[in-house]
Amino acid sequence: MATKRCAMARIADVVSFRHLFVLSLALNVSLILRGVNQNEKHQSGAPMAVHKGTKASQMRFLSFPSESAAAARETQPSVDENGGQRVINLDHGDPTMYEQYWKAMGDKTTIVIPGWQSMSYFSAGKNLCWFLEPELATQIVRLHKVAGNAVTEGRHIVVGTGSSQLFLAALYALSPQDSSHPISVVSTAPYYSSYPLMTDCVKSGLHKWAGDAKQFDKDEPYIELVTSPNNPDGFIRHSVVNRTGGILIHDLAYYWPQYTPISAPCDYDLTMFTVSKSTGHAGTRIGWALVKDVEVAKRMVKFIELNTIGVSKDSQLRAAKVLEVVSDSSEQAGGSESPESFFHFSHAVMTERWRLLREAVKDSGLFSLPKFSPAHCSFFDNNLGTQPAFAWLRCDGADVDDCESFFRGHKILARGGKHFGVSPKYVRVSMLDREETYSLFIERLSQISS
Amino acid sequence: MATKRCAMARIADVVSFRHLFVLSLALNVSLILRGVNQNEKHQSGAPMAVHKGTKASQMRFLSFPSESAAAARETQPSVDENGGQRVINLDHGDPTMYEQYWKAMGDKTTIVIPGWQSMSYFSAGKNLCWFLEPELATQIVRLHKVAGNAVTEGRHIVVGTGSSQLFLAALYALSPQDSSHPISVVSTAPYYSSYPLMTDCVKSGLHKWAGDAKQFDKDEPYIELVTSPNNPDGFIRHSVVNRTGGILIHDLAYYWPQYTPISAPCDYDLTMFTVSKSTGHAGTRIGWALVKDVEVAKRMVKFIELNTIGVSKDSQLRAAKVLEVVSDSSEQAGGSESPESFFHFSHAVMTERWRLLREAVKDSGLFSLPKFSPAHCSFFDNNLGTQPAFAWLRCDGADVDDCESFFRGHKILARGGKHFGVSPKYVRVSMLDREETYSLFIERLSQISS
Repeated sequence: MATKRCAMARIADVVSFRHLFVLSLALNVSLILRGVNQNEKHQSGAPMAVHKGTKASQMRFLSFPSESAAAARETQPSVDENGGQRVINLDHGDPTMYEQYWKAMGDKTTIVIPGWQSMSYFSAGKNLCWFLEPELATQIVRLHKVAGNAVTEGRHIVVGTGSSQLFLAALYALSPQDSSHPISVVSTAPYYSSYPLMTDCVKSGLHKWAGDAKQFDKDEPYIELVTSPNNPDGFIRHSVVNRTGGILIHDLAYYWPQYTPISAPCDYDLTMFTVSKSTGHAGTRIGWALVKDVEVAKRMVKFIELNTIGVSKDSQLRAAKVLEVVSDSSEQAGGSESPESFFHFSHAVMTERWRLLREAVKDSGLFSLPKFSPAHCSFFDNNLGTQPAFAWLRCDGADVDDCESFFRGHKILARGGKHFGVSPKYVRVSMLDREETYSLFIERLSQISS
Repeated sequence: MATKRCAMARIADVVSFRHLFVLSLALNVSLILRGVNQNEKHQSGAPMAVHKGTKASQMRFLSFPSESAAAARETQPSVDENGGQRVINLDHGDPTMYEQYWKAMGDKTTIVIPGWQSMSYFSAGKNLCWFLEPELATQIVRLHKVAGNAVTEGRHIVVGTGSSQLFLAALYALSPQDSSHPISVVSTAPYYSSYPLMTDCVKSGLHKWAGDAKQFDKDEPYIELVTSPNNPDGFIRHSVVNRTGGILIHDLAYYWPQYTPISAPCDYDLTMFTVSKSTGHAGTRIGWALVKDVEVAKRMVKFIELNTIGVSKDSQLRAAKVLEVVSDSSEQAGGSESPESFFHFSHAVMTERWRLLREAVKDSGLFSLPKFSPAHCSFFDNNLGTQPAFAWLRCDGADVDDCESFFRGHKILARGGKHFGVSPKYVRVSMLDREETYSLFIERLSQISS
């Protein structure tokens, strides 16, 4: 208890009362979750995400503390200016949920950039990726070690303006340059809705979208995109084509402890990550790729050079600071169960959000959700469920052919299955929006069911 | 004098002694240049850049103050670790020259970004360009008004990750989507060396590089790139093809008072600018386009959405602050002749660098440089010369076929004419590097001649 008071005093030096309030909420959740964890260690096989006992319901106040949610609704009313229902936009995976944590962290992640800093196109150091800030490289390697989700030894780091740019850079780097026709690019449906649009955006002669990997049967080289956990459905994915001539790109944007159990450090040829989904800093547009082959890394760098002449130094410095604080928060105060631990906090929020969603869906009887098997997470050292960044809902009713339209009718914007290469009976809903928006979504979903 | 002391005291509140030292240098130059200006107003037609009298030689200490240059050479030796000549890299237009000014400005352009700020993909406001920060838009409009170099009324602003991305976005937006073959993209040689590489990077089916605009004679639609002042040679450019079906993109990266007389606000359909060359903040990767047609602007936004899902918020906020200080510096203290005026400072540095270069080139007899006619500059309200961001040198010697190799032999890295679609007798040298590097370049150029 004395130790806890001491820690609170230290934190008080850098944060305001408002920050302290949010932090104290996080601390409460952490203590509850520690209780849940300890409890679960005695109930092997019971994953955190599907735990519905008393302890989990006590956590309800984190995502939806009655006072703060009410206050939030005062500024973000559930009705629009004409007295109608406010439109809830959950079409994009905008990760504003994380603002709550970073506000609680106060000045720890504040960066100060003087006017004369980082003016050059070039970064210091002698990295193959000439525009990569050395401090960002250091923090990327450190965070993967802390999270245990990726092997960084023997890899070249290529920084990108979000992982979107890295995806295009990877296509450029991996496509044969001397071929008379474009290489096929495939991914198992449902696949990330932007992949086809990005691949064919400028009608490239290097690569061409060829749809669902499971349907691909041409006897020629191809590039297979493996998103794991998958966007939109959250499942762990492996390559499916598995033939000679196949080149793999792994998009591991969601392979972080808050979304899925970390089974082992990934060890692929070309893997992409982004701060948008790991820490919630989508507006900084920073992603990175871990690349085994030096020639592939060089070609990716060349692409980014021709596309944007490098990547914002300001955002790289900010991302480095954010990753540093995430690693610090996991290491400094007793590992993953620390009240300040970023992954612990965000895992707790996701657990609660999924509990509420499953409850609403079960009550309604109109929808279904993917079912995930619990698995051991090396980061939390526990058997845990999966709680993806998107809810992949299916409208089960025989009279609902287009789930996106059905949701729109209830003023919920979400992305329909056809964008992901599957039936319009499916819809993707972001789970990462601000508390008040998510609260309103659950409320409205419950109203649909009743 | 009392006013000046008062201004110095105010500045002292925000800057360190080191900053004060640099600022005092700027102040000195400003006073000298004010003298030159006043003198020149009595000698109509005598452009500042070609003025070689006593006053200009007094300015020598700005770009090359003997003490600070000597100190700089101590940290950046002219010899390498093996005792050989240090390689001078002037291949890129890295605008590190401007660090000097921004250091002198101290905290005025410092930005502070808390960890929870700008996390969303989206920017506030209801701009057509959904990722454009409103404050950046405000400062872009203001700066164009201050500099008098572009009409912003009736334009949509599209922000990009540097103007490179905007160039690609413009190609995407202007290319016919339903054509069976790619549209031709042309520019008058010598043209910016990256244009062909960027246009054909992924072998787009939308657009194809078709070389020198002067040679273009196909009877079909085309896109003509007009860079004015031109990179590499600094001349003011107009479209040359001038036929039905021609679509123009104007790259006005260098249309700022420090490089060329501002004759009138430009008033084109699609114009691109960048902070890299206007304020020297290349590392922030921020450019903007002024676009007349709403559908073209929308398509450019769509491209950037698919390419990088928007543009770094951190860099946009930083760019907004920098542009604000440039406008403030021009307006607050008596207009363009203020000692703190960014354009005044940078114009003075460029004037002195070009004077030294022309002196060295004249002495050598081995090279020639473009000749520019003086013209009236509305910003400085004076008849002035042109002092481009690049020196476009021609090796005149009959025994030098490849000027790039010739320079490399003297350990000066520069970009040869063939990259710009012309003879290898030409070479492009950056004029925007740090003081000590430029000093060393002039020194070495003088040694070649002797």
